[in-house]
Amino acid sequence: MVQIMQNGYMNKWLKVNLASMELSDFTFSEDILRKFIGGKGIAVHFLWKYAKKLEEKGINLKEFDSLSPDNVLIFATGPVTATKSPNSGRHHVMALKSPLTGSIGSGNTGGRWGAKLKFAGYDGIVVAGKAEKPVYLTVFDGKAELHDASHIWGMNSIDTTKWLRDQYGKPRAGVSCIGPAGENLVPVAVIMNEEHRAAGRTGLGAVMGSKNLKAIIVDGDQKPSIAKPEEFDVKVKEHVEKLKENGVTGEGLPTYGTAILVNIINQNGLFPTNNWQTGVHEEAEKISGETLTDEYLISKHPCWGCVVACGRKSKVDSGPYKISYTEGPEYEAIWALGGSTGINDMGAVVRANHYCDIYGMDPITIGSTIAAAMELKEKGKIPEEELQGIELEFGNNDAVVELTWMTAFRQGLGYWIGKGSKSMCEHFGAPELSMSVKGLEMPAYDPRGAKGIGLNYATANRGGCHVTGYTIAAEILGDVDRFTIDGKAELTKIFQDFTSLVNSTVNCLFLTFALGLDEYAEMIGPVTGWDVDADELLITGERITNLERMIINKLGFSGKDDTLPKRLLEEKMPEGPSVGQTVNLEAMKQEFYQLRGWIDGKPTIEKIKELGLEE
Amino acid sequence: MVQIMQNGYMNKWLKVNLASMELSDFTFSEDILRKFIGGKGIAVHFLWKYAKKLEEKGINLKEFDSLSPDNVLIFATGPVTATKSPNSGRHHVMALKSPLTGSIGSGNTGGRWGAKLKFAGYDGIVVAGKAEKPVYLTVFDGKAELHDASHIWGMNSIDTTKWLRDQYGKPRAGVSCIGPAGENLVPVAVIMNEEHRAAGRTGLGAVMGSKNLKAIIVDGDQKPSIAKPEEFDVKVKEHVEKLKENGVTGEGLPTYGTAILVNIINQNGLFPTNNWQTGVHEEAEKISGETLTDEYLISKHPCWGCVVACGRKSKVDSGPYKISYTEGPEYEAIWALGGSTGINDMGAVVRANHYCDIYGMDPITIGSTIAAAMELKEKGKIPEEELQGIELEFGNNDAVVELTWMTAFRQGLGYWIGKGSKSMCEHFGAPELSMSVKGLEMPAYDPRGAKGIGLNYATANRGGCHVTGYTIAAEILGDVDRFTIDGKAELTKIFQDFTSLVNSTVNCLFLTFALGLDEYAEMIGPVTGWDVDADELLITGERITNLERMIINKLGFSGKDDTLPKRLLEEKMPEGPSVGQTVNLEAMKQEFYQLRGWIDGKPTIEKIKELGLEE
Repeated sequence: MVQIMQNGYMNKWLKVNLASMELSDFTFSEDILRKFIGGKGIAVHFLWKYAKKLEEKGINLKEFDSLSPDNVLIFATGPVTATKSPNSGRHHVMALKSPLTGSIGSGNTGGRWGAKLKFAGYDGIVVAGKAEKPVYLTVFDGKAELHDASHIWGMNSIDTTKWLRDQYGKPRAGVSCIGPAGENLVPVAVIMNEEHRAAGRTGLGAVMGSKNLKAIIVDGDQKPSIAKPEEFDVKVKEHVEKLKENGVTGEGLPTYGTAILVNIINQNGLFPTNNWQTGVHEEAEKISGETLTDEYLISKHPCWGCVVACGRKSKVDSGPYKISYTEGPEYEAIWALGGSTGINDMGAVVRANHYCDIYGMDPITIGSTIAAAMELKEKGKIPEEELQGIELEFGNNDAVVELTWMTAFRQGLGYWIGKGSKSMCEHFGAPELSMSVKGLEMPAYDPRGAKGIGLNYATANRGGCHVTGYTIAAEILGDVDRFTIDGKAELTKIFQDFTSLVNSTVNCLFLTFALGLDEYAEMIGPVTGWDVDADELLITGERITNLERMIINKLGFSGKDDTLPKRLLEEKMPEGPSVGQTVNLEAMKQEFYQLRGWIDGKPTIEKIKELGLEE
Repeated sequence: MVQIMQNGYMNKWLKVNLASMELSDFTFSEDILRKFIGGKGIAVHFLWKYAKKLEEKGINLKEFDSLSPDNVLIFATGPVTATKSPNSGRHHVMALKSPLTGSIGSGNTGGRWGAKLKFAGYDGIVVAGKAEKPVYLTVFDGKAELHDASHIWGMNSIDTTKWLRDQYGKPRAGVSCIGPAGENLVPVAVIMNEEHRAAGRTGLGAVMGSKNLKAIIVDGDQKPSIAKPEEFDVKVKEHVEKLKENGVTGEGLPTYGTAILVNIINQNGLFPTNNWQTGVHEEAEKISGETLTDEYLISKHPCWGCVVACGRKSKVDSGPYKISYTEGPEYEAIWALGGSTGINDMGAVVRANHYCDIYGMDPITIGSTIAAAMELKEKGKIPEEELQGIELEFGNNDAVVELTWMTAFRQGLGYWIGKGSKSMCEHFGAPELSMSVKGLEMPAYDPRGAKGIGLNYATANRGGCHVTGYTIAAEILGDVDRFTIDGKAELTKIFQDFTSLVNSTVNCLFLTFALGLDEYAEMIGPVTGWDVDADELLITGERITNLERMIINKLGFSGKDDTLPKRLLEEKMPEGPSVGQTVNLEAMKQEFYQLRGWIDGKPTIEKIKELGLEE
C-alpha cells in the first residue's frame, strides 16, 4: 500500500512493545487525522480502540490495574507542532487509566520535546507492555532503539537529562523521563521533560515507571511539510502580532509569569487557603508574581518557539531554602505548595517546587494533599506517631518542603501524600477533606468565587482540572459576571471543546487569550491543506471531548462523579470579596448535560452519531 | 550423632540460603566455641572457612564483588548474650567483604535483637545467596520462615519495625532491618535494629540489600543454660557494682551519654574540625553533651539489660530542624555530622542523625564524607553544576541535613557521598582529602593528639575505626602520655585483642572502663563451665584478631594499607592543645608488627601455629 503523505505530519508513529522489546511504525489515515487532528484528539481515538480491544480480551476496565503492563502510554504531537506557528514545541501525553484517579490519564507539557520528536521523524509514540529491566528509548532521525537503563535508574530528572545528552553528544536533544517518584510508582508522579517541564497530572510518571521505561531522548533534522507555506507565514506573523498586543500574553505573562495570578485571584477572594477553608490568604503578597520577580527571578525561560515566555529561571539567595538555580514556580504550584498550605515563604515554595521537578511529581496534587493532611491533623484524624516528628500545621514551611521530598520516596506520611488526597483522607477517616473531583485535586480557583470553573471542575473528564476549560479567562480576566450561574453551562462547554482542539493542534493554551477559533483555522488550514473553518474545529473539539467522555464511562465514571466536594456546595465562603457564596452546581450541570446531549454524564447515541463516533 | 549441649549457647545456628529459599540448622563444636567464643570470633572462624571455599570454586577474593550473591552475612551472639550479665543484649554482624572498603565487613550493635535471637532459640544466623524478590525472615521460638517483603520494600526502619511487630502482635520482638539506603545498595548503608541502633560501619546494609533481605524479626521464650548459676549470679552483682562505681560508666555516660566526649576531646585539641584541617572547634560547646542534655534530651534509653544507659531519647523544640522524637545522637555522630563539617547547630545534627537512622546509614562515614566534599569544594574540585544549588561550605547546617537524606536515595551529590570519601575524593581528583584508612572514614579523635589511636586506625582490620582498640580510654580518659609513641604498640595490641574478645563474648565495650580480663573470665567461666583465665582470654582475642587479619590479607590488604592519611603524617596540627603534632606512624607500626609477629601486615606462619590457626 502506498503511504499517502499528509502535510503537517511526519506520517509515522512509533509503537514500542516493551514485553517483546519490538519496535514498529504505523500511521493514521487522513480521515482520522482530520477528525481528531493530533495530540490529545488522536490519542483519545487510539485509546478508545485500545479500550475496546482490552474488553474483547475479557478485561474489566473498571477493575483494570493502571500499573499493569496492559495500560498504554501515548506521547502525541499535532500538525502545528514544530512549525513556525507560535508556542508549538509542546506535546500531549495520555494513558488509558490514571494510577491517581482511575479515570483517564492525561497531561499536556511545554518544553521542546514535542518539536524534537517531529524533527526525529515521528508524530508520536505508543508504549505498551512492561520491560523486564529498566530501559530507555532513543529516537534519532527516524531510527528508534531500546537500551538498558539499569545504571541510570534512580537518577533524578536533571541528572537523567544531562546523562543522556552527554552520552549521545546531543546537548539540544529533547529528553522526557521519570524521576525517582515514577520509578517508585508513586501515583502523583509526572513525566518530566527539559528538566523542569512536566506532563503534570494524573500520575503519568507512575505509568511510565510501571513499564520500566526511564526516558525517551529524541533529536533529528527532519521537518513536516507545510501545504501552503506562504499563506502560513503570513498568518503566523499576524498571530504573533496579536499575541504581543494582548495584555495577558504580551505583558502580564512575560513580565510576571503565571504567578501574576496570585494577587489577582486573592484580591477577588477565591485563592483557596488552608485546604479551601477560606479564599483569602492574608500574606499572599509574599508569594506573589511581583515578589517572585523582584526577589527570586534570574531570567525568563521560554519553551521552544514561544513568543510569550512565561517560564521563569529562579533562585533563593539566602535562608534555609537557598538554591542557586531552579525553574518556576508556576502559579498553580505556588498556590498548592503555598496558599493551600497557608505558608508565606516564597523560598520554601521554590524549594518544594524544585523537589517536585527533580523527583518528578505534580505540585498541585502534592501541595493540595499536604494541605488536606494539615486539616486532618487539625481535626485530630492523624495519629501523632504517623508524623514521626513533622509539625504538620498550616503555615509550617518546613513541613511542606520535607513532605514533598519524602513523597518521592514513599517515606513516612509521604506514602499517603503520594497516593493523593482522596485515598489519604479515606484512609484517615475523613473523605470530605479531600478537595478533589474524580480523585484529582482541584487547582487554584475557588469556584464559590467563579461559578463556571466549578462546573468545569465537576465535568472535566480527567477530574478537578483548570486547563480543560479555563473559564477564569472570562470570569476573572474577562467581563463575564463571576457569581452568576446564568450562561455558565454554555461558556464551559465552549471552553472545554476549544481546549480539546488546542491540545490536539498541539500548541499552548495561553494562545487562546489572543487567538480564537478563526485563528486556529488559519493555522491548521495552511499547514494541512484542509479547508477548515471555526465551526468544523469546534465540532472537532466537541468530538474529542465526547470520545474521551465515552472512555471514562467505560472506566466506570458517570453523572454521580460530575460533582464537587461538599465544602464548595454547602459551606459559605467565610470572608473576603466572595463572602457568602456557595456553588449551585446542580442547576448548571443539568443545563450543561442538555447542551452536551448527555444523560447521567454519558453521551446519548444521538450525540455519538452526530459527532461521527458511532463506529 | 548425639548433639552435645554446651552451656551458654542455644547450640543452634540458622543457615538461610536465599538462592534456594532453604532454611537449615547447624552448630559448632565445643572445641571451636572455646577457641572463638561467639559473636565476632565465631563469625571470623566461619568467614575464613567460607573464604577458602570460594577460592576453591575459583573465585578471586580480591576482585570478588561484595554485592554479589556469593558474599555472606552473619548475625552472631556469644555465650554471655541474653544472660543476667550486664549489657548483654548486643550482637555482632559480619560480611566477608565490605561494599564500602573492600576489606572485611563488621559491625557491633546494641538494642535487644541479640538477646531476642537467643530467646528465639538461635545463637546466630548465616545468610547466603540472593532472593529473587524482597523477603523477610521470622524466627519465633525455634521456628524460622521466609516471607514475601515486596509490600514493605521502600519502608524506612521505623515503619518496618512497627509493621513487623504489628503484623505478628509481638510489640517487644527484636527487628533488624535495612532502610531505603540498604535497598538502594548505597555503600554507607547500615543494618538497623530497635529503630535507632545500628551495626553501623562498612556498609553491611548494602550487603543485606543485595540479598533482597529486608528484615529479620526474632522473638521467643527460650533461654541458654548456665553451667554454674549461683557463682554467675555472685559475679554479676560484683560486676554491676564495679560499673556503678566507675566514673565513666557510673556517672559520665549515664548523665551525658557518649556526647560527654565533645568538650573533653575538643579541650584536648584533637576534635577533628573542617575535615581534619584543625583539632579545635570554636563552637563545640553548642554541640556538646551538656547542651544535648540541657536542651534536647527527653530521657535515657538503655539497651536490653544495660546498667549504664548511655542511649538518649531526644527532640528539637523549634527552628527548621524541629522534631518531636528521635534518639541519639552519639558522640561519633555529633562529631561527624557536626564538628567534621564545622557546623554548630545541634538541631541540624539531631535531624541529620535522624535521617541516618530512619534511612539506615552510617553517620560517621556520611558526616566525614560531606566534610571531605566541603573541602573539595573549597579547593575548587567540584564543578558548580554537580551541586544543584547546595551551598557546600563548612558550617552550613542545611547542606549537611540535605545531603544526608539525599545520600539514602543516591540523589545528586548524595550519589558520591554514599560511596564514601575515598571513592568520592578519587572521582573528583583529590584522593588526599579522604580522611580514611582502608576506605573507612576515621572517627572523632585526631591521632596527632593521641598517638596510640593513630596506630590503631592504621592497623585495625576493618579500617579507620575506634572501637577496634579504643586507646583513648588510656590516652585521654586515663593517664597514659598521649603525645609519646613509647609503649603505644603494646597498648594498641592489648586493646585490639581484648576488644576482639569483648565483641565475641558478646557484650558492651563500655564495660571495659570498669571490668578487665579477670572479670571477663568471671563471666565466661560460670556461664560455659570452662575453666578459663585472663591469659587464655587474651590469647583468644589475639587469635580472633589474627584470623580476621588473615582474611583481609586474602582480600588483598597488606602492610602498605596499614597507614594514615598524609595530612596526619605530615601536616602539623595548626593550633590548640595539640599544636605542632604529627603522627610518627612508622616507628610505632614496626614495633607493633614485631609484637604481633607480623611481616608486612601479615601474620607469620609461626604466629599462626602459635595461635592454633594452622588448619
